[in-house]
Amino acid sequence: MQIQPANIFASLPEHSDQELFTTLLERPGCRIERIISYGQTSPEEFWYDQAWDEWVLLTQGAAEIDLGDRKVALTPGDHLFIPAGQKHRVTLTAPDQPTIWLAVHLNTATGV
Amino acid sequence: MQIQPANIFASLPEHSDQELFTTLLERPGCRIERIISYGQTSPEEFWYDQAWDEWVLLTQGAAEIDLGDRKVALTPGDHLFIPAGQKHRVTLTAPDQPTIWLAVHLNTATGV
Repeated sequence: MQIQPANIFASLPEHSDQELFTTLLERPGCRIERIISYGQTSPEEFWYDQAWDEWVLLTQGAAEIDLGDRKVALTPGDHLFIPAGQKHRVTLTAPDQPTIWLAVHLNTATGV
Repeated sequence: MQIQPANIFASLPEHSDQELFTTLLERPGCRIERIISYGQTSPEEFWYDQAWDEWVLLTQGAAEIDLGDRKVALTPGDHLFIPAGQKHRVTLTAPDQPTIWLAVHLNTATGV
Protein backbone atom coordinates (compact mmCIF):
# COMPACT_ATOMS: atom_id res chain seq x y z
CA MET A 1 0.00 0.00 0.00
CA GLN A 2 1.39 3.38 -0.95
CA ILE A 3 1.19 5.74 1.98
CA GLN A 4 0.52 9.30 0.94
CA PRO A 5 -0.76 12.16 3.02
CA ALA A 6 -3.81 14.10 1.86
CA ASN A 7 -5.20 17.33 3.26
CA ILE A 8 -8.70 17.99 4.57
CA PHE A 9 -8.48 21.59 3.34
CA ALA A 10 -7.56 20.56 -0.20
CA SER A 11 -10.06 20.64 -3.06
CA LEU A 12 -12.24 22.98 -1.06
CA PRO A 13 -14.70 24.95 -3.19
CA GLU A 14 -15.56 28.40 -1.86
CA HIS A 15 -19.26 27.79 -2.41
CA SER A 16 -21.57 24.87 -3.06
CA ASP A 17 -25.32 24.43 -3.24
CA GLN A 18 -24.95 21.06 -1.55
CA GLU A 19 -22.95 19.61 1.28
CA LEU A 20 -19.89 17.73 0.09
CA PHE A 21 -19.04 14.27 1.44
CA THR A 22 -15.64 12.64 1.02
CA THR A 23 -14.62 9.30 2.52
CA LEU A 24 -11.07 9.64 3.83
CA LEU A 25 -10.69 6.11 5.19
CA GLU A 26 -12.82 2.98 5.11
CA ARG A 27 -11.89 0.00 7.24
CA PRO A 28 -13.91 -2.83 8.77
CA GLY A 29 -16.25 -1.25 11.31
CA CYS A 30 -15.02 2.28 10.72
CA ARG A 31 -15.43 5.00 8.15
CA ILE A 32 -13.81 8.42 8.40
CA GLU A 33 -15.48 11.11 6.38
CA ARG A 34 -14.99 14.77 5.63
CA ILE A 35 -18.18 16.77 5.36
CA ILE A 36 -18.21 20.34 4.09
CA SER A 37 -21.29 22.45 4.78
CA TYR A 38 -22.02 25.80 3.16
CA GLY A 39 -24.76 27.11 5.38
CA GLN A 40 -26.87 23.98 4.89
CA THR A 41 -28.93 22.58 7.73
CA SER A 42 -31.03 19.44 8.13
CA PRO A 43 -34.43 19.62 6.45
CA GLU A 44 -37.36 20.72 8.61
CA GLU A 45 -38.66 17.90 10.80
CA PHE A 46 -35.85 15.61 9.64
CA TRP A 47 -33.90 13.78 12.35
CA TYR A 48 -30.85 11.60 11.97
CA ASP A 49 -31.41 8.36 13.90
CA GLN A 50 -28.46 6.14 13.15
CA ALA A 51 -27.82 2.51 14.03
CA TRP A 52 -24.12 3.24 14.52
CA ASP A 53 -22.00 5.47 16.72
CA GLU A 54 -20.59 8.68 15.30
CA TRP A 55 -17.86 10.99 16.58
CA VAL A 56 -17.59 14.39 14.98
CA LEU A 57 -14.89 17.06 15.12
CA LEU A 58 -15.49 20.54 13.77
CA THR A 59 -12.26 21.72 12.17
CA GLN A 60 -13.43 24.99 10.57
CA GLY A 61 -16.52 27.18 10.56
CA ALA A 62 -19.37 26.89 13.04
CA ALA A 63 -22.39 24.68 13.61
CA GLU A 64 -25.26 23.94 15.93
CA ILE A 65 -26.70 20.48 16.57
CA ASP A 66 -30.13 19.87 18.05
CA LEU A 67 -30.18 16.76 20.23
CA GLY A 68 -33.91 16.88 20.84
CA ASP A 69 -33.87 18.22 24.37
CA ARG A 70 -31.22 20.87 23.78
CA LYS A 71 -28.93 22.44 21.21
CA VAL A 72 -25.15 22.27 21.17
CA ALA A 73 -23.04 24.97 19.50
CA LEU A 74 -19.79 23.83 17.92
CA THR A 75 -16.74 25.95 17.14
CA PRO A 76 -13.41 24.81 15.64
CA GLY A 77 -11.80 22.09 17.72
CA ASP A 78 -15.07 21.00 19.33
CA HIS A 79 -15.80 17.30 19.20
CA LEU A 80 -18.94 15.43 20.08
CA PHE A 81 -19.80 11.76 20.44
CA ILE A 82 -23.23 10.85 19.11
CA PRO A 83 -24.11 7.30 20.17
CA ALA A 84 -26.28 5.05 18.03
CA GLY A 85 -29.92 5.90 18.45
CA GLN A 86 -29.32 9.50 19.53
CA LYS A 87 -31.64 11.57 17.42
CA HIS A 88 -30.03 14.73 16.14
CA ARG A 89 -30.26 17.31 13.44
CA VAL A 90 -28.05 20.15 12.26
CA THR A 91 -29.78 23.47 12.84
CA LEU A 92 -27.01 25.82 11.76
CA THR A 93 -23.78 25.91 9.79
CA ALA A 94 -21.78 29.07 9.12
CA PRO A 95 -23.33 31.06 6.25
CA ASP A 96 -20.17 32.99 5.38
CA GLN A 97 -17.51 30.29 5.17
CA PRO A 98 -17.20 26.55 4.60
CA THR A 99 -17.76 24.46 7.73
CA ILE A 100 -15.53 21.40 7.75
CA TRP A 101 -16.50 18.35 9.80
CA LEU A 102 -14.55 15.23 10.43
CA ALA A 103 -16.96 12.37 11.10
CA VAL A 104 -15.82 8.98 12.39
CA HIS A 105 -18.56 6.38 11.93
CA LEU A 106 -18.10 3.34 14.17
CA ASN A 107 -19.55 -0.14 14.41
CA THR A 108 -20.69 0.21 10.87
CA ALA A 109 -21.62 -3.44 10.44
CA THR A 110 -24.81 -2.30 8.79
CA GLY A 111 -22.72 -1.22 5.86
CA VAL A 112 -23.11 2.53 6.12
CA MET B 1 -25.16 9.26 28.41
CA GLN B 2 -24.70 12.99 28.72
CA ILE B 3 -23.52 14.40 25.43
CA GLN B 4 -21.16 17.31 25.88
CA PRO B 5 -18.75 18.77 23.39
CA ALA B 6 -15.10 19.15 24.32
CA ASN B 7 -12.39 21.00 22.44
CA ILE B 8 -9.07 19.64 21.22
CA PHE B 9 -7.45 23.05 21.77
CA ALA B 10 -8.60 23.25 25.39
CA SER B 11 -6.26 22.59 28.32
CA LEU B 12 -3.30 23.19 26.05
CA PRO B 13 -0.10 24.07 27.91
CA GLU B 14 2.25 26.35 26.02
CA HIS B 15 5.23 24.16 26.85
CA SER B 16 5.85 20.65 28.08
CA ASP B 17 8.91 18.48 28.52
CA GLN B 18 6.88 15.48 27.44
CA GLU B 19 4.31 14.70 24.81
CA LEU B 20 0.77 14.79 26.18
CA PHE B 21 -1.70 12.00 25.40
CA THR B 22 -5.45 12.32 25.95
CA THR B 23 -8.02 9.69 25.01
CA LEU B 24 -11.01 11.47 23.50
CA LEU B 25 -13.11 8.38 22.75
CA GLU B 26 -12.76 4.69 23.48
CA ARG B 27 -15.10 2.20 21.87
CA PRO B 28 -14.79 -1.47 20.92
CA GLY B 29 -12.11 -1.68 18.24
CA CYS B 30 -11.44 2.04 18.17
CA ARG B 31 -9.64 4.62 20.25
CA ILE B 32 -9.42 8.30 19.34
CA GLU B 33 -6.56 10.14 20.94
CA ARG B 34 -5.18 13.66 21.02
CA ILE B 35 -1.41 13.88 21.09
CA ILE B 36 0.39 17.15 21.71
CA SER B 37 4.07 17.34 20.81
CA TYR B 38 6.40 20.15 21.87
CA GLY B 39 9.33 19.55 19.58
CA GLN B 40 9.69 15.93 20.70
CA THR B 41 10.69 13.24 18.25
CA SER B 42 10.98 9.47 18.49
CA PRO B 43 14.12 8.27 20.25
CA GLU B 44 17.11 7.42 18.07
CA GLU B 45 16.77 3.98 16.48
CA PHE B 46 13.25 3.60 17.89
CA TRP B 47 10.55 2.49 15.44
CA TYR B 48 6.84 2.17 16.05
CA ASP B 49 5.69 -1.22 14.74
CA GLN B 50 2.05 -1.57 15.72
CA ALA B 51 -0.29 -4.53 15.47
CA TRP B 52 -3.20 -2.20 14.69
CA ASP B 53 -4.07 0.36 12.05
CA GLU B 54 -3.67 4.04 12.82
CA TRP B 55 -5.00 7.10 11.04
CA VAL B 56 -3.52 10.45 12.00
CA LEU B 57 -4.60 14.02 11.27
CA LEU B 58 -2.33 16.94 12.02
CA THR B 59 -4.50 19.81 13.24
CA GLN B 60 -1.84 22.33 14.31
CA GLY B 61 1.93 22.70 14.08
CA ALA B 62 4.18 20.64 11.83
CA ALA B 63 5.73 17.19 11.79
CA GLU B 64 7.76 14.74 9.76
CA ILE B 65 7.32 10.98 9.81
CA ASP B 66 9.95 8.55 8.62
CA LEU B 67 8.39 5.48 7.01
CA GLY B 68 11.68 3.68 6.56
CA ASP B 69 12.12 4.22 2.85
CA ARG B 70 11.13 7.88 2.85
CA LYS B 71 10.01 10.78 4.99
CA VAL B 72 6.63 12.47 4.89
CA ALA B 73 6.16 16.09 5.97
CA LEU B 74 2.83 16.98 7.58
CA THR B 75 1.23 20.39 7.82
CA PRO B 76 -2.16 21.30 9.35
CA GLY B 77 -4.98 19.38 7.69
CA ASP B 78 -2.72 16.58 6.45
CA HIS B 79 -3.87 13.07 7.27
CA LEU B 80 -2.06 9.79 6.86
CA PHE B 81 -3.10 6.16 7.18
CA ILE B 82 -0.48 3.97 8.81
CA PRO B 83 -1.48 0.31 8.43
CA ALA B 84 -0.60 -2.31 11.02
CA GLY B 85 2.99 -3.41 10.62
CA GLN B 86 4.16 -0.22 8.92
CA LYS B 87 7.29 0.80 10.74
CA HIS B 88 7.47 4.51 11.37
CA ARG B 89 9.03 7.09 13.61
CA VAL B 90 8.52 10.80 14.16
CA THR B 91 11.62 12.70 13.08
CA LEU B 92 10.39 16.25 13.62
CA THR B 93 7.70 18.23 15.39
CA ALA B 94 7.51 22.03 15.42
CA PRO B 95 9.96 23.48 17.95
CA ASP B 96 8.18 26.83 18.33
CA GLN B 97 4.56 25.83 18.90
CA PRO B 98 2.49 22.86 20.08
CA THR B 99 1.83 20.27 17.39
CA ILE B 100 -1.60 18.70 17.80
CA TRP B 101 -2.32 15.27 16.36
CA LEU B 102 -5.57 13.43 16.19
CA ALA B 103 -4.88 9.69 16.14
CA VAL B 104 -7.57 7.10 15.40
CA HIS B 105 -6.41 3.64 16.44
CA LEU B 106 -8.38 0.88 14.75
CA ASN B 107 -8.81 -2.86 15.17
CA THR B 108 -7.48 -2.50 18.66
CA ALA B 109 -8.40 -6.01 19.74
CA THR B 110 -4.95 -6.30 21.26
CA GLY B 111 -6.12 -3.88 23.91
CA VAL B 112 -3.99 -0.89 23.02
